[in-house]
Amino acid sequence: MSEESHTSRPNPSAIPGAVVSRLSLYLRELQHLIATGKETTSSSQLGRRLGFTDAQVRKDLAHFGHFGHPGIGYKCVELIGEIRKILGTDREWQVALVGVGNLGRALLGYRGFVQQGFRIVMAFDTDSAKVGTEIEGVEVSHLSQLGEVLKAKKIELGMVAVPAAMAQSVTDEFVAAGIKGIVNFAPVTLQVPEGVSMVGVDLARELEQVTFTVANKLANLNDQ
Amino acid sequence: MSEESHTSRPNPSAIPGAVVSRLSLYLRELQHLIATGKETTSSSQLGRRLGFTDAQVRKDLAHFGHFGHPGIGYKCVELIGEIRKILGTDREWQVALVGVGNLGRALLGYRGFVQQGFRIVMAFDTDSAKVGTEIEGVEVSHLSQLGEVLKAKKIELGMVAVPAAMAQSVTDEFVAAGIKGIVNFAPVTLQVPEGVSMVGVDLARELEQVTFTVANKLANLNDQ
Repeated sequence: MSEESHTSRPNPSAIPGAVVSRLSLYLRELQHLIATGKETTSSSQLGRRLGFTDAQVRKDLAHFGHFGHPGIGYKCVELIGEIRKILGTDREWQVALVGVGNLGRALLGYRGFVQQGFRIVMAFDTDSAKVGTEIEGVEVSHLSQLGEVLKAKKIELGMVAVPAAMAQSVTDEFVAAGIKGIVNFAPVTLQVPEGVSMVGVDLARELEQVTFTVANKLANLNDQ
Repeated sequence: MSEESHTSRPNPSAIPGAVVSRLSLYLRELQHLIATGKETTSSSQLGRRLGFTDAQVRKDLAHFGHFGHPGIGYKCVELIGEIRKILGTDREWQVALVGVGNLGRALLGYRGFVQQGFRIVMAFDTDSAKVGTEIEGVEVSHLSQLGEVLKAKKIELGMVAVPAAMAQSVTDEFVAAGIKGIVNFAPVTLQVPEGVSMVGVDLARELEQVTFTVANKLANLNDQ
């Protein structure tokens, strides 16, 4: 525990999404450093394996407060705690998943969620062969029970892992049930009312980041 | 076909990753507009459902050339073609997947890849129960054959969908086989030599984006 809180509470809409996304990367890197026995680190060490400059790391963190110690740098455990506080993951979040096809099953078994404080506690589907079963220790209920179960269990986050054509109607049901945050894995853009936070995970985007680099490097080589 | 090429070829390392990532979003939105019968669009329409200003859209596209037409705006089909050219997805990419657990199976069945021009043509695993089978029409070979098969088939992209502990060694095998671009789905940071492009997909990051917004909104409400 530190004597004083170092973090200033941000207005979430004033912080670019890219900064928040990099905080997640810094958190992972700090967790990796701890796992390899490092107790303190620096902006340049934190950025190095991620390909960011030390100036970028300092600028990103400066949005939220002062975290370094003179002559020491960052204390890994302390900075992990502060970043978790900023990201809201200094506590566990309960998540409801809709859709237990291949992708839903993969999400139920994805160890990266639990590591970061996310627990999928309920799953929903419309397939009667799946309803009533347990997958990775999580019970599958019929989608028609979504609203009732979410309210009873006070679940705050929803994950959409259904085919694109069903994704908006599932999202509408999440919103009607009072869910405040939704992560969409269907390859389609969805509409939510103001006050509900939504992020889309489009698995092809990362591939496009890679082809952008590979294709343009190849093209530049051919130009020379 | 346009009379002249509008795109200027970028140096990929000079373009922020966030810009490339937004190009993917613009591409999806344009594809959605086409699907709903729209032939032309504007910066503000393109940005609206994504939550970006028209200035942001114009600035992002200006990195790569001039795409609008006076009095018309953007022609959807034309801009789709230009963005695909920039992203390198104006042709199909063949992808090799290592790891056919739940996540690997989900990736093999993910329709968003084929829609954007990515075809997983080979899968690899070490589990003898899986080797020799076909999943979603893709043959599963033993991991020991990776190098040989990649060279024979001229596959340029690799996907890592193995547990974190195996991810670096699989990545090393991809690199040794001459793969130029890798997408990593294991929740761990991996090292690649210069000249190999790698993007990590950390599925918890999107959840953290959502909790960042939800947690800070709640906290700000409680402060009032």
